[in-house]
Amino acid sequence: MAEYIEQIEKLSDCFRRIDGVGRKSALRMAFSVLDMSEEDVREFADALISVKTDIGYCPVCRNISGEGLCSVCRDPERDHSQICVVEDFRAVAAVERAKGYRGLYHVLHGAISPMKGVGPDDLTIKDLLTRLGDGKVEEVILATNPTVEGETTAMYLSRLISPLGIKTSRIANGVPVGGDLEYTDELTMRRALEGRYDL
Amino acid sequence: MAEYIEQIEKLSDCFRRIDGVGRKSALRMAFSVLDMSEEDVREFADALISVKTDIGYCPVCRNISGEGLCSVCRDPERDHSQICVVEDFRAVAAVERAKGYRGLYHVLHGAISPMKGVGPDDLTIKDLLTRLGDGKVEEVILATNPTVEGETTAMYLSRLISPLGIKTSRIANGVPVGGDLEYTDELTMRRALEGRYDL
Repeated sequence: MAEYIEQIEKLSDCFRRIDGVGRKSALRMAFSVLDMSEEDVREFADALISVKTDIGYCPVCRNISGEGLCSVCRDPERDHSQICVVEDFRAVAAVERAKGYRGLYHVLHGAISPMKGVGPDDLTIKDLLTRLGDGKVEEVILATNPTVEGETTAMYLSRLISPLGIKTSRIANGVPVGGDLEYTDELTMRRALEGRYDL
Repeated sequence: MAEYIEQIEKLSDCFRRIDGVGRKSALRMAFSVLDMSEEDVREFADALISVKTDIGYCPVCRNISGEGLCSVCRDPERDHSQICVVEDFRAVAAVERAKGYRGLYHVLHGAISPMKGVGPDDLTIKDLLTRLGDGKVEEVILATNPTVEGETTAMYLSRLISPLGIKTSRIANGVPVGGDLEYTDELTMRRALEGRYDL
C-alpha cells in the first residue's frame, strides 16, 4: 500500500473540492464513509445529486429555490415593502438566521468587481429594477458584504435607486457582538465610533 | 425561508454523519456543493458509492482492499517474516505514512473490550493464528492503540503467540516528536522515562 487504495483516494479528492477541506480532513472523511451503512451512503449520494439538479432560482428574488417561487417570496406574511439586497444565497441564510427581518430579498449573484471583470450587467440588477417598478417597495436595504466590491455595489445601487424615490439604506459596520475590542481592526473601530448611538 | 430549503437540509444532514463534522460545517459543505459543476457532483456521488461497494477485505490480513489480496500482501518485496497487528485500517494507513516498516499487517477490526461487549472471538484473531501456523513469521509487532482496550488486546495476543515460539513486541510509548513536555500527561512522561535509551 504505497498510497491508499484507489477508491479512497478518489473520494478523498472529491471531498477536497469542498471549500475549506484540506488533504487530511478529506482522507478522514473518506475513511468515515467506509464506516457508514450502505443505505446511508446511497442516501448521501442521492442528496448530492439532488442539491445540484433539483435546486433552481426563484424567478422573483433570484435566491435558490426548490421549486418556482422561493418560500420567502411565497410567504404572504412577509413585508413586501422592504427588499434586502445581498450578494449570494449564503447571505440570505445569514440574515434569516438572525431572525427579525420580515421583508423580501434580492440576490445579486456577486458584486461589481473590475478586478474580476464583473460589471453591473453580470448581476441581477435589471431584475431588481423591474421589481422596484411596481411602486410597492418603500425601502431597499443594501446588505452586500463590507468589502471593497460590496461597498462599490451598494454605492452603485444607491445611486440607481434613490432617484426612483425609494429609500436606500446600508447595514451598519461596528464591533461584532461578543467580540473583543483588542482584536478589532482600525477601520471597524472607526466605523463603530462613528455609528455610536445615544443611551 | 424559515429553514433552509429541503435539499440543502438533507445534504447537510448527510455531511453531519461524517465523524467530526458539526452542524455549521455541514451546512457550509452543502452550500459548497451548490457551487460545484454538475459533472463534479456526479463524480462525487459515484465515488461515495464506489467506496462502499467496491471495497472489500483482504482475505489474508483483513485490511481493506480494492480487489482480492491487498497491495501489501501482494507485494513480494515486503518482509513476510514480520506482522504488524493493528486495530483498524486507519492504523495501517498511519504506519504506512510513517514509511520505514516493510513487513505485513494484520487488522483485528477492533480491540477486546468487555465494556462494549467485544471479546476475542469478535476479532480476526483466529485468522492471525492461522497465518502464524506456516512457520514463516518471526516477529509479531503489537501496534494496537495505547488505550485500555488496546493494551488488553496486546497482552492477550502476546500470551497466545509467545508459546508458539514467535517473538512479540509492542510499539513504544513516549513523548511525541515535536511535542512539548509541558503538555505531556503523567503516564506518557513516565513511559518516556522508562523507555529512555543511551546516547
